[in-house]
Amino acid sequence: MSSSDIFIGETIGTAVLILLGGGVCAAVTLKASKARGAGWLAIAFGWGFAVLTAVYTSAPLSGAHLNPAVTLALAIKDHDYGTLPVYWGGQLLGAMIGATLVWVAYLGQFRVHLTDREIVGGPGAQDTVKAVEAEEAAAGPVLGIFSTGPEIRNAVQNLLTEIIGTVVLVLAILTQGLNNEGNGLGAVGALITALVVVAIGLSLGGPTGYAINPARDLGPRIVHALLPLPNKGGSDWAYAWVPIVGPLIGGAIAAGIYNVAFA
Amino acid sequence: MSSSDIFIGETIGTAVLILLGGGVCAAVTLKASKARGAGWLAIAFGWGFAVLTAVYTSAPLSGAHLNPAVTLALAIKDHDYGTLPVYWGGQLLGAMIGATLVWVAYLGQFRVHLTDREIVGGPGAQDTVKAVEAEEAAAGPVLGIFSTGPEIRNAVQNLLTEIIGTVVLVLAILTQGLNNEGNGLGAVGALITALVVVAIGLSLGGPTGYAINPARDLGPRIVHALLPLPNKGGSDWAYAWVPIVGPLIGGAIAAGIYNVAFA
Amino acid sequence: MSSSDIFIGETIGTAVLILLGGGVCAAVTLKASKARGAGWLAIAFGWGFAVLTAVYTSAPLSGAHLNPAVTLALAIKDHDYGTLPVYWGGQLLGAMIGATLVWVAYLGQFRVHLTDREIVGGPGAQDTVKAVEAEEAAAGPVLGIFSTGPEIRNAVQNLLTEIIGTVVLVLAILTQGLNNEGNGLGAVGALITALVVVAIGLSLGGPTGYAINPARDLGPRIVHALLPLPNKGGSDWAYAWVPIVGPLIGGAIAAGIYNVAFA
Amino acid sequence: MSSSDIFIGETIGTAVLILLGGGVCAAVTLKASKARGAGWLAIAFGWGFAVLTAVYTSAPLSGAHLNPAVTLALAIKDHDYGTLPVYWGGQLLGAMIGATLVWVAYLGQFRVHLTDREIVGGPGAQDTVKAVEAEEAAAGPVLGIFSTGPEIRNAVQNLLTEIIGTVVLVLAILTQGLNNEGNGLGAVGALITALVVVAIGLSLGGPTGYAINPARDLGPRIVHALLPLPNKGGSDWAYAWVPIVGPLIGGAIAAGIYNVAFA
Repeated sequence: MSSSDIFIGETIGTAVLILLGGGVCAAVTLKASKARGAGWLAIAFGWGFAVLTAVYTSAPLSGAHLNPAVTLALAIKDHDYGTLPVYWGGQLLGAMIGATLVWVAYLGQFRVHLTDREIVGGPGAQDTVKAVEAEEAAAGPVLGIFSTGPEIRNAVQNLLTEIIGTVVLVLAILTQGLNNEGNGLGAVGALITALVVVAIGLSLGGPTGYAINPARDLGPRIVHALLPLPNKGGSDWAYAWVPIVGPLIGGAIAAGIYNVAFA
Repeated sequence: MSSSDIFIGETIGTAVLILLGGGVCAAVTLKASKARGAGWLAIAFGWGFAVLTAVYTSAPLSGAHLNPAVTLALAIKDHDYGTLPVYWGGQLLGAMIGATLVWVAYLGQFRVHLTDREIVGGPGAQDTVKAVEAEEAAAGPVLGIFSTGPEIRNAVQNLLTEIIGTVVLVLAILTQGLNNEGNGLGAVGALITALVVVAIGLSLGGPTGYAINPARDLGPRIVHALLPLPNKGGSDWAYAWVPIVGPLIGGAIAAGIYNVAFA
Repeated sequence: MSSSDIFIGETIGTAVLILLGGGVCAAVTLKASKARGAGWLAIAFGWGFAVLTAVYTSAPLSGAHLNPAVTLALAIKDHDYGTLPVYWGGQLLGAMIGATLVWVAYLGQFRVHLTDREIVGGPGAQDTVKAVEAEEAAAGPVLGIFSTGPEIRNAVQNLLTEIIGTVVLVLAILTQGLNNEGNGLGAVGALITALVVVAIGLSLGGPTGYAINPARDLGPRIVHALLPLPNKGGSDWAYAWVPIVGPLIGGAIAAGIYNVAFA
Repeated sequence: MSSSDIFIGETIGTAVLILLGGGVCAAVTLKASKARGAGWLAIAFGWGFAVLTAVYTSAPLSGAHLNPAVTLALAIKDHDYGTLPVYWGGQLLGAMIGATLVWVAYLGQFRVHLTDREIVGGPGAQDTVKAVEAEEAAAGPVLGIFSTGPEIRNAVQNLLTEIIGTVVLVLAILTQGLNNEGNGLGAVGALITALVVVAIGLSLGGPTGYAINPARDLGPRIVHALLPLPNKGGSDWAYAWVPIVGPLIGGAIAAGIYNVAFA
């Protein structure tokens, strides 16, 4: 694989991943979305099948890492760090493109969701405003459409959760080749990886929203900071290092387990 | 593949697609349906597995395009437009047959759903009528069982959403062959395509109901206009061009991306 | 395949099918079940994966028809009716065994569900009794755990719905071989068939509960009539012919479509 | 396979199984989890895809039994009990590691869930305390995150339910090889097994919570007894023998059926 194929593949694939993954968060969160309130099962399957689609639309070019923690683990496993920067660059760019496309696809919904407070405003409308604010609080801020955040903020706990989730993800990816007799990541492998991501979402997503991928979190967070959304709230940069550092540690641990137990 | 095989295959396949896809919309919408209120996850899985079944029952004859935007993209990719008209004709006819079969399968449900207002009517029953009307408003009009419609009506925004969704769909279909080592669309490919459609439904269906297929929208809209349903409401022809033009643009863009990045 | 292998295979497979399919109906219906109220999506996936498990545990012996309408369609397709009686016999016996196993697995739940009315009875407890009865009405009678029934009782409409659903099922099964290049029903084929059943459940199950299989309905109905369940209500024999005749007609139509369009 | 590979494989695989399976129970149960209240469908898919991930991350080393009842059934089928102890040992150790990792990943959630009663306490706050207690009762005790328990406590009934569920599971696993033409447990086989577990969860999980695996229940119960959780309640040792004995009987019965009907 040439460097340009890797970069283009990772850019396209990670863009599709974040478009569909961020998209399902928008779909269940935003007002005037047909899928509003579809719940956690929709989010877990949405992210899982986002992985499937993203792997499919990038594997022929770059092998579909789509995740800096996966790239790091493969580099550790193979003792080859040469292509790591081009993978990481494509992943971050793709994540930013994907988050921007979520904004484009849900343009009207973002506007209605974020500006309803002003629409109902006016003299004597205090009670209505309060009701609307209560509903908005229930819906959550739109940052959750872009990046992850913890239910209980505690750096050590949040790091541990992200590390554990990423170890599971990367270990399953590293053992793909062994299960498919050297055929690498074909259609069935893409499907299995997708369902592993559904599993992690259902099982380990509760505390932090399962970034398990530094690009998945950082790219959209940058886009959230840059987009001209009214009332969008802060981008929570204080938390941003956790879903970067945690998954990278998790990927490294998984590579270590693989090299000791499977290689 | 002969022209008659293509036409018959696309007619059968698209009929199955719309029968099952429109069917799940009927199932969750109509009164006196056991699946009423099953929610967005049911709709997304229902349409996805409708694609699976439809591909299966048409691929041996026509290759299972089932979507004018897919046919257009493949024509652009291969620089061969010769069979495009016969594909498009079979798809539109099949979509109309499928929508009619939904009506047949849910005959009693349509009647009860659309005429309950009259049943509860009568002197002094105004409050009941209001309650029923409120419930009907929540259930939505039956046009949604046939064709798509936007939550926020804005031609540019709705077009963008349909284009983005179709680009994802068609790009995943075009890269099938690369992921399956030239084996084309076998059973596993059909399954992957189905799950990509689930992904698009969960992630990008919120704003417009994800037509991502001109025949899927136009055929049933014609049937809605023709069927003798009482109180059925209008067929919303003002919106009809969006889910035709958007997916065709999306298919063309996806073919362009494929020819530049993958070919 | 020997006649005894066919009979044993169909008996085991159909028993597993009805144990898991009837089981999910018990799980979401009965009091004191952890899955109570899990909804239509659970039922559709439950029946679909019941098919998967049943095909797996019978295909090596009998080819896993598990449905008299499938056996009829294959006989019409191949002009060979010799083994039809032994298939049908195994299917009916298996369905009765499966329904009995549902009763065994949910023994305590059936008892609590059906006798709670008496427990809360007593002088002055009329209001409580009414509330309990209202809840029971919402839960539905236990016949629905064994056999199907229509939401709107109309023989012609119910027949049409069952015919349409079965045509889709059998057509997808008949085209299996074409999609798998003559490999017949392997693991992937079993999975696809299962997801087709999920599709039919989500899309066409609303009006009649999608028997689409005479043995699936008749066997458990016989068991419901025989089991010593208190307050079990009638077995609705007046409807019993619809889910037998409808699927058989549907299977024959699908075989005809196959022979004309695909053979 | 060497004994050390078997032991390491079973330990890793069963740890992943219980981490993800116990994880989904934590996710839908605990306060301050994003997935709280996601329901039975989430639990059934969560455990199923936990099996998928666990099989993937252990099959290359040990063949992925991950369940003493599966190991027993294979030993009976092959008349070879030599490696049974090392399989069982790895499974129990892995289950204990997995349950501990659930506790680590949901550390903050366990603390909040179990100590909220004290936080809201104080003079005059009796009503609030009552409301909180009512909510806690609805959420269920945390033992359910570790081990199974019956809705209706009756040793014979509970044993029967566990036996029936395990027979289905093991029979599907034993027939894997026949369906995959001797290729054993590849990626597709892992997927099918996972969906069989989803089926059993949806269909037979209602009465007892479907242990169908002695290690899955005993390992986490030991961890529940040892962990320093405040207000954790008892570990229900009186029930502990049922999900051990039932699955072992079920595995033996399935092996018997296999040897008579399929071998």
